[in-house]
Amino acid sequence: MNFCSACGSANIALQIPEGDNKLRYVCADCGCIYYQNPKIVTGCLAVWEQQILLCRRAIEPRYGLWTLPAGFMENGESLEQAAQRETWEEAQAKVNNLQLYTITSLPRVNQVYVMFRGELLDTSYACGIESLEVELFSITELPWHKLAFRVIEQTLNLYCSDAAKKQFKLHVDTID
Amino acid sequence: MNFCSACGSANIALQIPEGDNKLRYVCADCGCIYYQNPKIVTGCLAVWEQQILLCRRAIEPRYGLWTLPAGFMENGESLEQAAQRETWEEAQAKVNNLQLYTITSLPRVNQVYVMFRGELLDTSYACGIESLEVELFSITELPWHKLAFRVIEQTLNLYCSDAAKKQFKLHVDTID
Repeated sequence: MNFCSACGSANIALQIPEGDNKLRYVCADCGCIYYQNPKIVTGCLAVWEQQILLCRRAIEPRYGLWTLPAGFMENGESLEQAAQRETWEEAQAKVNNLQLYTITSLPRVNQVYVMFRGELLDTSYACGIESLEVELFSITELPWHKLAFRVIEQTLNLYCSDAAKKQFKLHVDTID
Repeated sequence: MNFCSACGSANIALQIPEGDNKLRYVCADCGCIYYQNPKIVTGCLAVWEQQILLCRRAIEPRYGLWTLPAGFMENGESLEQAAQRETWEEAQAKVNNLQLYTITSLPRVNQVYVMFRGELLDTSYACGIESLEVELFSITELPWHKLAFRVIEQTLNLYCSDAAKKQFKLHVDTID
């Protein structure tokens, strides 16, 4: 942050505003305060006949590695709409019966992951522009050593464990 | 947004960047794209001997009306830490045994509310700087007509209904 986006001043400094207790970017000319908050990443663990839909990333970070379809929630949508949109954009797949499955705070990267379980409507999935491949994996064939993100590895681990018990519950966790 | 906060240019326009499908603020000079995403509001429904802790707001919006202690999640913290911090800041109260209780998407105001149930450690609560009063209310005495936000009213309604059944579960919802 080099310039105030309200008045254009370069007189921007990190300081603690009055009545606050955290450092914020503040414009010394117009007084505008810039707050930065965590972003929500949401998506689906979409299942078809006990197989899980994964996407191989066509973008950085983690180009070429496998992940669940997920991405940043946008303004103007609900969590569920965002998860379905991301599943469509990355895997051209439609899911229903969405159930909230994992909520994972990632304080080091200022994100909260919200993943739903859902049922694939059919097998007409395909690559969206952010995917190199989209594929169904059975639990015994998941590409554990080629996964893009630890939070995705954890969500898949929980799914495998819950599937073995045939009992799925919500998991709330933090990866530090 | 009038100026690019990276290069200071006033050459900012709302446009759909290449490979995207949504309008974003884009700097025509340095190419910087400004994404805006929903914010997380989190807090606690803190209970002491079947009474609920509410705060009367000392700030706008909804100055003077009652709410559960809650506020914007900050970078570098987990959901649970944020909920506990807000409960401390607004009601000088400590809670434990936090259980995720309601997750409410508010697409019209680009927020997701994440509320926990928790047990008050003791009754040494007090006003934080954003509160005019902090008080315990029994379920039959809740100030329904003086609540600050619909999402808080809904969370309290769910709590009363679950308390009557003596069974609390997670509620995921959208207020449109």
